[in-house]
Amino acid sequence: MKYKRRKRLSAEEYANGIINGDRIILSRAITIIESKLENDILLAEEVLEKILPYTGKSLRVGITGVPGVGKSTFIESFGKYITSQEKKLAVLTIDPSSQISGGSILGDKTRMEELSNDPYAYVRPSAAGSALGGVNYKTRETMLLCEAAGFEVILIETVGVGQSETTVKGMVDFFLLLMLAGAGDELQGIKRGIMEMADAIAITKVDGDNVKRGQLARVEYQNALHLFPPSETGWSPKVMTCSSVNKDGLDKILDNIIQYQKEMNEKGYFFSRRQEQNLHWMHETIESYLKRAFYNNTDVASQLDTLENQVIQNKVPALTGARRLIDIYNQ
Amino acid sequence: MKYKRRKRLSAEEYANGIINGDRIILSRAITIIESKLENDILLAEEVLEKILPYTGKSLRVGITGVPGVGKSTFIESFGKYITSQEKKLAVLTIDPSSQISGGSILGDKTRMEELSNDPYAYVRPSAAGSALGGVNYKTRETMLLCEAAGFEVILIETVGVGQSETTVKGMVDFFLLLMLAGAGDELQGIKRGIMEMADAIAITKVDGDNVKRGQLARVEYQNALHLFPPSETGWSPKVMTCSSVNKDGLDKILDNIIQYQKEMNEKGYFFSRRQEQNLHWMHETIESYLKRAFYNNTDVASQLDTLENQVIQNKVPALTGARRLIDIYNQ
Repeated sequence: MKYKRRKRLSAEEYANGIINGDRIILSRAITIIESKLENDILLAEEVLEKILPYTGKSLRVGITGVPGVGKSTFIESFGKYITSQEKKLAVLTIDPSSQISGGSILGDKTRMEELSNDPYAYVRPSAAGSALGGVNYKTRETMLLCEAAGFEVILIETVGVGQSETTVKGMVDFFLLLMLAGAGDELQGIKRGIMEMADAIAITKVDGDNVKRGQLARVEYQNALHLFPPSETGWSPKVMTCSSVNKDGLDKILDNIIQYQKEMNEKGYFFSRRQEQNLHWMHETIESYLKRAFYNNTDVASQLDTLENQVIQNKVPALTGARRLIDIYNQ
Repeated sequence: MKYKRRKRLSAEEYANGIINGDRIILSRAITIIESKLENDILLAEEVLEKILPYTGKSLRVGITGVPGVGKSTFIESFGKYITSQEKKLAVLTIDPSSQISGGSILGDKTRMEELSNDPYAYVRPSAAGSALGGVNYKTRETMLLCEAAGFEVILIETVGVGQSETTVKGMVDFFLLLMLAGAGDELQGIKRGIMEMADAIAITKVDGDNVKRGQLARVEYQNALHLFPPSETGWSPKVMTCSSVNKDGLDKILDNIIQYQKEMNEKGYFFSRRQEQNLHWMHETIESYLKRAFYNNTDVASQLDTLENQVIQNKVPALTGARRLIDIYNQ
């Protein structure tokens, strides 16, 4: 069997394909965006520059929650509800445990099957990049391509255990936290600080025997959220309950997100926050480049372990450890 | 009048003075630590290296709260309570609005007067450095010098509105958040995420007419904290009330901190967290150096505004803006 190499398109062709909503070209462009080859990086930038005027029209929603909260099932149900409203939906999922092979995720084929077959939906799984703690380091650019391709709602899934939430919070309009009823062991996995990032909390699996518990939890969390300092936008995060199995409460969640968009638009925050996010992303990119260049420097890398150990064991002050590595880097 | 220049000591002399608890030498050494002159930086590193074996024996406590919460008054009362237990106390205060002039803070002379005159206490005000969002960028090293000088408790004050809390959280053992009763406008100033960082919350000004309100608030906050995900150490932050005027509740707060230290020691977290903090600080220092070098580069600086504006206005992708600046930097 002969492997047939696909013809490489020009930036123009990619951009036009994306703007015309061609999903095959979109998928190929995302693969180029994710590539680390020098050629691809330059091509990706050209494509981005061309599609930029067509971006910004979607509603960007981050969804997080610990494993076990039923994130995939929720996104499948919630996604189906969104497409049932005749809204075009793109779902970018990030799976930290998965490995990518030729663009598809191994061992993860059964996730969101229904949504994947929905003509209104586009599901793109990404392996987690190491650069930004779990979030594929090109998720933001992938989101821009999806916007240019005409998707009206973009859901970005993260895992709720790493630094990825901060990164995703910095690229979405709305951040939805999924929680389970009962503040017991189920919460162990979620990282502190994430609750305060949420624009809304949805308690999942509120069906069958779990309805009472879920309703109680809703009141408790709602009370807790009132004690948080209000955000500068004046938005008060709501706690809602839902069931992905019974399709309960999904409408209320979407309504809440749309209400948020409306309010933020009226107050002028929607646009200004996106501007800040753009700027922030440029600086993030620069800083992650600077760190990579530093720690990948072979001389630095060869001394790093030794100095780290000396600093950990309090034999060398952190400041001196830092200065020595910087001197090595600057040589 | 002739300005008499003080003789510059050797690293050896500074280190010995500090280890012997000479406060005048300690103060002079801190000034050198805070200096940005090349000579001083090298001398400071030498001093640090020499005193390092004598560090690590204090209890490091960060204290934060918005302006108006009564932070200075609290630290004064709480500090007096600590020294009344015959514990040697160092207080490092950071005042973002102050300017430093010859080592003393202008317009801030009346703060903590009682504590300043206490033979068991050493109060060192610092102007806020710009490097780490309000925290003087050598606060950690100042803390090490104080430890070597034999101070058993070190209080580090921050302002509760910036990034400084994250930085201080990364250098202390215990993080105490001061709050006011009533979740109204008083909370406006505090940054989201800070509540989840706290190892304890103390509600201040619970005296006179405010006692009932304070006790109610205590219960409310305690309930809210229960809903937070537990920390990996298993520590449950307590909410306490206090009055700096009546000296009420200060003993309970100190007991709580000492209990924390005991529990963390037993579980092995106390030492391991400090090791992590050492390492983290080295990397922080490196990364803040890398950023400074980048943004202070004259070619980068000359293009930064233009590119920032293009990125904000969505005329240039963030990725391209970043790449262009990196290219300029690497030329």
